[in-house]
Amino acid sequence: MLEAIRDGRLGVEDGLGRLRSWPVRDLGHTQLDVHRAVRCGSAEVVYGRGKTPEQLVEIALALLEHHDRLLVTRAAPEAAERVLAAIPRAVLHRASGAITVEAPGAGAGEGLVLVVSAGTSDGAVAEEAVVTARMHGARVVELRDVGVAGLHRLLAHTETLQSAEAVVVVAGMEGALPSVVGGLVDCPVIAVPTSVGYGASFGGLAALLAMLNSCAAGVAVVNIDNGFGAGTIAARINRRAEKRKR
Amino acid sequence: MLEAIRDGRLGVEDGLGRLRSWPVRDLGHTQLDVHRAVRCGSAEVVYGRGKTPEQLVEIALALLEHHDRLLVTRAAPEAAERVLAAIPRAVLHRASGAITVEAPGAGAGEGLVLVVSAGTSDGAVAEEAVVTARMHGARVVELRDVGVAGLHRLLAHTETLQSAEAVVVVAGMEGALPSVVGGLVDCPVIAVPTSVGYGASFGGLAALLAMLNSCAAGVAVVNIDNGFGAGTIAARINRRAEKRKR
Amino acid sequence: MLEAIRDGRLGVEDGLGRLRSWPVRDLGHTQLDVHRAVRCGSAEVVYGRGKTPEQLVEIALALLEHHDRLLVTRAAPEAAERVLAAIPRAVLHRASGAITVEAPGAGAGEGLVLVVSAGTSDGAVAEEAVVTARMHGARVVELRDVGVAGLHRLLAHTETLQSAEAVVVVAGMEGALPSVVGGLVDCPVIAVPTSVGYGASFGGLAALLAMLNSCAAGVAVVNIDNGFGAGTIAARINRRAEKRKR
Amino acid sequence: MLEAIRDGRLGVEDGLGRLRSWPVRDLGHTQLDVHRAVRCGSAEVVYGRGKTPEQLVEIALALLEHHDRLLVTRAAPEAAERVLAAIPRAVLHRASGAITVEAPGAGAGEGLVLVVSAGTSDGAVAEEAVVTARMHGARVVELRDVGVAGLHRLLAHTETLQSAEAVVVVAGMEGALPSVVGGLVDCPVIAVPTSVGYGASFGGLAALLAMLNSCAAGVAVVNIDNGFGAGTIAARINRRAEKRKR
Amino acid sequence: MLEAIRDGRLGVEDGLGRLRSWPVRDLGHTQLDVHRAVRCGSAEVVYGRGKTPEQLVEIALALLEHHDRLLVTRAAPEAAERVLAAIPRAVLHRASGAITVEAPGAGAGEGLVLVVSAGTSDGAVAEEAVVTARMHGARVVELRDVGVAGLHRLLAHTETLQSAEAVVVVAGMEGALPSVVGGLVDCPVIAVPTSVGYGASFGGLAALLAMLNSCAAGVAVVNIDNGFGAGTIAARINRRAEKRKR
Amino acid sequence: MLEAIRDGRLGVEDGLGRLRSWPVRDLGHTQLDVHRAVRCGSAEVVYGRGKTPEQLVEIALALLEHHDRLLVTRAAPEAAERVLAAIPRAVLHRASGAITVEAPGAGAGEGLVLVVSAGTSDGAVAEEAVVTARMHGARVVELRDVGVAGLHRLLAHTETLQSAEAVVVVAGMEGALPSVVGGLVDCPVIAVPTSVGYGASFGGLAALLAMLNSCAAGVAVVNIDNGFGAGTIAARINRRAEKRKR
Amino acid sequence: MLEAIRDGRLGVEDGLGRLRSWPVRDLGHTQLDVHRAVRCGSAEVVYGRGKTPEQLVEIALALLEHHDRLLVTRAAPEAAERVLAAIPRAVLHRASGAITVEAPGAGAGEGLVLVVSAGTSDGAVAEEAVVTARMHGARVVELRDVGVAGLHRLLAHTETLQSAEAVVVVAGMEGALPSVVGGLVDCPVIAVPTSVGYGASFGGLAALLAMLNSCAAGVAVVNIDNGFGAGTIAARINRRAEKRKR
Amino acid sequence: MLEAIRDGRLGVEDGLGRLRSWPVRDLGHTQLDVHRAVRCGSAEVVYGRGKTPEQLVEIALALLEHHDRLLVTRAAPEAAERVLAAIPRAVLHRASGAITVEAPGAGAGEGLVLVVSAGTSDGAVAEEAVVTARMHGARVVELRDVGVAGLHRLLAHTETLQSAEAVVVVAGMEGALPSVVGGLVDCPVIAVPTSVGYGASFGGLAALLAMLNSCAAGVAVVNIDNGFGAGTIAARINRRAEKRKR
Repeated sequence: MLEAIRDGRLGVEDGLGRLRSWPVRDLGHTQLDVHRAVRCGSAEVVYGRGKTPEQLVEIALALLEHHDRLLVTRAAPEAAERVLAAIPRAVLHRASGAITVEAPGAGAGEGLVLVVSAGTSDGAVAEEAVVTARMHGARVVELRDVGVAGLHRLLAHTETLQSAEAVVVVAGMEGALPSVVGGLVDCPVIAVPTSVGYGASFGGLAALLAMLNSCAAGVAVVNIDNGFGAGTIAARINRRAEKRKR
Repeated sequence: MLEAIRDGRLGVEDGLGRLRSWPVRDLGHTQLDVHRAVRCGSAEVVYGRGKTPEQLVEIALALLEHHDRLLVTRAAPEAAERVLAAIPRAVLHRASGAITVEAPGAGAGEGLVLVVSAGTSDGAVAEEAVVTARMHGARVVELRDVGVAGLHRLLAHTETLQSAEAVVVVAGMEGALPSVVGGLVDCPVIAVPTSVGYGASFGGLAALLAMLNSCAAGVAVVNIDNGFGAGTIAARINRRAEKRKR
Repeated sequence: MLEAIRDGRLGVEDGLGRLRSWPVRDLGHTQLDVHRAVRCGSAEVVYGRGKTPEQLVEIALALLEHHDRLLVTRAAPEAAERVLAAIPRAVLHRASGAITVEAPGAGAGEGLVLVVSAGTSDGAVAEEAVVTARMHGARVVELRDVGVAGLHRLLAHTETLQSAEAVVVVAGMEGALPSVVGGLVDCPVIAVPTSVGYGASFGGLAALLAMLNSCAAGVAVVNIDNGFGAGTIAARINRRAEKRKR
Repeated sequence: MLEAIRDGRLGVEDGLGRLRSWPVRDLGHTQLDVHRAVRCGSAEVVYGRGKTPEQLVEIALALLEHHDRLLVTRAAPEAAERVLAAIPRAVLHRASGAITVEAPGAGAGEGLVLVVSAGTSDGAVAEEAVVTARMHGARVVELRDVGVAGLHRLLAHTETLQSAEAVVVVAGMEGALPSVVGGLVDCPVIAVPTSVGYGASFGGLAALLAMLNSCAAGVAVVNIDNGFGAGTIAARINRRAEKRKR
Repeated sequence: MLEAIRDGRLGVEDGLGRLRSWPVRDLGHTQLDVHRAVRCGSAEVVYGRGKTPEQLVEIALALLEHHDRLLVTRAAPEAAERVLAAIPRAVLHRASGAITVEAPGAGAGEGLVLVVSAGTSDGAVAEEAVVTARMHGARVVELRDVGVAGLHRLLAHTETLQSAEAVVVVAGMEGALPSVVGGLVDCPVIAVPTSVGYGASFGGLAALLAMLNSCAAGVAVVNIDNGFGAGTIAARINRRAEKRKR
Repeated sequence: MLEAIRDGRLGVEDGLGRLRSWPVRDLGHTQLDVHRAVRCGSAEVVYGRGKTPEQLVEIALALLEHHDRLLVTRAAPEAAERVLAAIPRAVLHRASGAITVEAPGAGAGEGLVLVVSAGTSDGAVAEEAVVTARMHGARVVELRDVGVAGLHRLLAHTETLQSAEAVVVVAGMEGALPSVVGGLVDCPVIAVPTSVGYGASFGGLAALLAMLNSCAAGVAVVNIDNGFGAGTIAARINRRAEKRKR
Repeated sequence: MLEAIRDGRLGVEDGLGRLRSWPVRDLGHTQLDVHRAVRCGSAEVVYGRGKTPEQLVEIALALLEHHDRLLVTRAAPEAAERVLAAIPRAVLHRASGAITVEAPGAGAGEGLVLVVSAGTSDGAVAEEAVVTARMHGARVVELRDVGVAGLHRLLAHTETLQSAEAVVVVAGMEGALPSVVGGLVDCPVIAVPTSVGYGASFGGLAALLAMLNSCAAGVAVVNIDNGFGAGTIAARINRRAEKRKR
Repeated sequence: MLEAIRDGRLGVEDGLGRLRSWPVRDLGHTQLDVHRAVRCGSAEVVYGRGKTPEQLVEIALALLEHHDRLLVTRAAPEAAERVLAAIPRAVLHRASGAITVEAPGAGAGEGLVLVVSAGTSDGAVAEEAVVTARMHGARVVELRDVGVAGLHRLLAHTETLQSAEAVVVVAGMEGALPSVVGGLVDCPVIAVPTSVGYGASFGGLAALLAMLNSCAAGVAVVNIDNGFGAGTIAARINRRAEKRKR
């Protein structure tokens, strides 16, 4: 653009105007940032909670005009139905309320993101991480119900653990699993505390604090129940490995 | 006493008086409960923090008039020196500030209390648990620096773990060790969170919450840094096993 | 197994494979740990909350193929009905939502686990502790509504208190009861804070903190409302006493 | 004053001025409220912490120009010395750092304020309550080291407890003592949590929450370590009883 | 009883038995403490929350066999209806869910308990305090909606404030009212924080902390929303004044 | 009034009476402070939550007898309908539940209050701020969905930002927006944390703490979700600018 | 700059370079933002805590090369001495550790910022607010020791309160003063909680929460002890009034 | 080893023994895990805090027998001197107390780890991250003092930001910087909250919560002040990229 100004093809006032109107599409209630894929490496993702079914449908359709894929997280059942009705190729992942339209070849990339969860009840959050990492292009494998009170269940998968580019570890209650996994692998571990538990779990606070204090050095933490964030980061780690390889 | 009243050996008023003056020895600043050993199975133990050297010496001497053993916990260095000077047979345990006068045969009992700690920095609390359990008559073995980020260090001791009557597990930071130990043994696990850590450990709160939320069923928790409490409970569990055996 | 390898009955690769496939039964959503009874001294127990009625029935039936007893805790009413319909000999304990299939002779063991609760509202948690301890083989006696504001209600049971191998104390609000009981007995006290209360009880936090700070030395604490954990530990303490006796 | 305006003895402007200059004496750093004794029933009391020795001396001397008694709380040792040097008849209470100049006949009133404390370490706070209640004119009796883990130490004083007009109960750690006392008396109980404890006592928070959740109905609570507040309230309760009696 | 033993009218064993069976009536789910009125100066009060309608009716009827008055607090609407149906002379106070059967002459005593509340929304808690204080025999006057943001609303009642034996101050949000009232009166102020507010009020925590830190010396605090506790204490203060007067 | 007393037009007793009856209108449940507009510069505003539809209608009608405008905040849908039915010229703002009757010329004043919000979900709180500032006479412009993860969306409005007299910044989650805005403007920034978020947002606590710790110097904070408070302050800042101008 | 590009005076590459090198002066440890006065309306202010004496002197001298005034806050005594030695015209404000070099005519502006504090111990924070507001050009008046427990001390200054453009209210403990002041004035109130207090004040948390929940509508809050922030905002409010007036 | 057993070169008992004695070197106080570099990809790192100078020297020397590099974090000044004296080639990084012995070619690897910090006071934590990432083989560039209140300071480095494989963002106070950086890059962002701040920063809690709630999707968080953890993870991300490239 600065070149256009120098060449006289663009006036100074117009240049200022353009600086102010970076690519944003205004739906009234939401400023769609349709170029985020260019800057941040991923399409705009829609956080479903707190949006009306109408808003969700409108946003989803607008995004699909610019992208070949879509991820809506935590859609309420009613809103999910409406989106599925409006976008027939969309897929609903029931445990987590995620809705996806996958680009061709999604999840067939190189590398490996491993999503490990401690208990059956952590499944919804793990699913969100799996779906998100796939949407960002990663090949994903999932290990479920391998909590620390029965170590052999985890140790049986040591080889798989050590072949991953990034491991997402999902756990509620005492949140001990990331520390144990972190002692077994040499790739980054993204820990997701979940709100699974009761009493002194204080809605996931216990697991969150435990994970932040992990004695294993390669562990970073995202928000309670934030499978989406963990899946995004894991996929980004995996993608860098791929990119360099080429 | 009621029999004495019936027999006329004790007047009603005197009986009421005696009910009010259950065995307590008044040092002015402290009501010594010298019969606690009878009721609760252990001699009076003195919490050293917040007491002046003079008070500690006076209390310690008074207790040794009634008991053949003594445990002072968390004595400040200066106070400890004063007690050692006044009671030559007393022994100071430097890491924890515990002072002991052991009864003959202490620590030679049957059964086994195991004290397991996660890191070098948890040593002071572990020492307090070891000393306390010995004072209460238990045979004690200690495993140090076997945190969960290097599982094989712990697994190397599986057999010892499974031979204990009670296991005390001492850990700071994420407090994950009790859950792992709890999955390996069938005896009660007494977990002691420590204030080892920084930042989001919030003085041991992270480890405390983690332990309270342990997914392993046989884990109970005592206060942060409370090696004394854990050693007492473990010794009581061990003692019951012994008692029945006779 | 190592012997089988030496004898040539088992190949090295197979040995590695077996190490990886320690006894776990995979139901898709849950990795059943059917050998836990061998390692940890109790059958797998099912935490009912957050599981669908279908999952609960499937897990319960699978466990009963391997064990002669079953404990499901905190089943929602609808799920409980479904389990009772599928397993006619199962018994529902309504206050706590626990479902049990008892082994022959359950609760007839030696020793004594005492479950003491402070107020009427603590009944559900106390029931969970009672049911759990029985399932783990203990003889159990229960004392209800003996809170500290009317001390004589508790003191009337001093003899019973002193005959127990382990005492579970269940209390909400200020959580003072374990300290008082702890001053009366010489066996371990397992304290269970409950979420009974309002305002500054903060969902049981007040009782939890009080119990962790108990001035009576023999008190250990489990999670808020965790009657199951307390019952398990108490039964384990009781069982060790029995085991040694033989 | 309004009468004076009506009678013309006082102009309107002067009336407004007087309304604005209610009796306050300005020392520059402190607005002395020398008439508080009239409105609130007690002389101005000086909170010593955070004031320089010079400020304390100046305030103390100014107050003694208007009152026949004085209470400074929590004076640092150096500041205390300075005040004692400036006011020879002042008395220092070392445990709490309180300094008093007593009015003639202080502490000889009718009624009875009882100050009960759980452990030796609670002594400083109890002393502040005792000194304060005496300064406000109450007869005070103190019971020390009667914590709930040795109930008989408290029960031995049941008669004294039941003869008080108000009971101040001082306790740290689990803060259970007010609930037990509250079940034994029919007068108001003012509970003072102390910062005595460690770990999960969180500087007295555990005791504070416990006391706020007391299952005994007649218990009200003041700030952690606030012996002054408790002594004031207890004395006010006692004084009302006296006043009516006349 | 001890006299009976001495005289031979009562055997020692029987005496021990009686000591153990202090007056308690067992309803299965609840140990009724029907003599509490004798020891603590008030009839047993029933906390309605968490009790089934059946339990409430049964307890209420049992109490009325021993007492001429009754107070049930926080009865759910359905339970309240059932109690009213079973006890026609009972009165329901709708805002607070309190149910009362008043003794003859209730609320006609001497002295005065004043219940002051900050906002309209604090009315339910204030009502609980009013009803409770009346049940305990006090004459009660109530001032509503006199929060600190419009001081003149409170100052208009200065005279009434200064005529009370005890003032209960009910406030949510910032909880400032007790400090202001405490500066105007010389009787004890019982502060009740309420859960009225949102956001950073954290369910009444903000008001609770503010009241505990009141700069006015005569303020003591009860649990969040605990109108019952405040009413009880205020009535006890008022009663002592009356008692002495006779 | 004092002049009237001096002149004899008003007796002393009457004067005292008037002092006590400052302008307050008593609706039984609410003390309407109808002169607040005089003292504090704004008409009485009604907080709708926790009031019955009947109370809301009654209060609204009473206020409109004295004022030409009205603001009810957070009316529940049913209550809102009732108010709209009773006051046909009232307008409901659906996202926030605000109801307004605007004075003629509302929102046409000079100056500018800018209300900036981070995400779509913060819209209800932003709306409350907009409506409130307009009711207090300010001209208001709103910028929506300009969160910090896409800075260009905000920077596009730099000129508008710098033309405001006061900026209200509404943000949930990490609450970073006020710091960024605060670095771009030289007028006061009023930050409103919202409860938008989940997990470790703890109901808006994360955003609240972030805003209180803003590294930009001109940022002050109101309660979580308190759009009303922010709108009021911003309008007052704007009004002072206007007032001086005249 | 864009014009320079169009005119060919500046190359595109150079333009990009300049965009990247907005006016920042690099001292190695600190990126001085010397143009902040232009954008945000105030000179760079230096936060003294955590900086070495050497760093403080270096930064202060660098700033005075660009500005005619300087404000350093919270300088440690040693560092303050060093700055005073290096900059003879600098003035140290001892209570708060603030160091100022005032521009000619500072504090002589129109309008009025009022700084009100509750107790003597709040003086350091109040001083920081006063000094800061003066540095930003405001005329400032201070009222000290006018806490809510003696309301007449505040009410005596009602007229002054109502003449201010902005009021800063500084209070620790229960933080009630802003609510009372907020009910008396129609200008914005900036509340500063202080860490003055003990026990349940939790380092100022009690006052902070109280102020955030103020029932008076015109109150916004800054961080605990943040006199600087409050002074800045108040001065900005005051300045806008002045600016418009011209 | 299993092959050795099959071949008869190793007895079964010996095999079990070896399984138990995985490579651990016992220094008495510390179980050195000298093979961790093999399993987890980095040499053992020593956490210096809480270790005596003697322990630190002993551990450091023992590690250097097995590794060509060493990292000690947070050594106290005295302990650091001792280590430097014992290991002349060691280098002390004063701000953070880190001590390093670098392997040849350290920090010369491919890829780029960027360490960005918000303020001067965050320097110690940033240094720890820089040193750690270099020790793990990464090339590291550091940007300091680019907080969000002066956005242009950060935007000037957009190109550098976008060239990194991983960005570590260090910030205290409101912790907003990671969200802004996260919106500008497509690589993982590792956020480190620092304890820089005061009052409502609560020792870094405010920044921690803000970062966990970041609206930018690629942000993961480590413990407060944990520069070491962030440096480790960033280096691991960077290394994977490199590894794949070969």
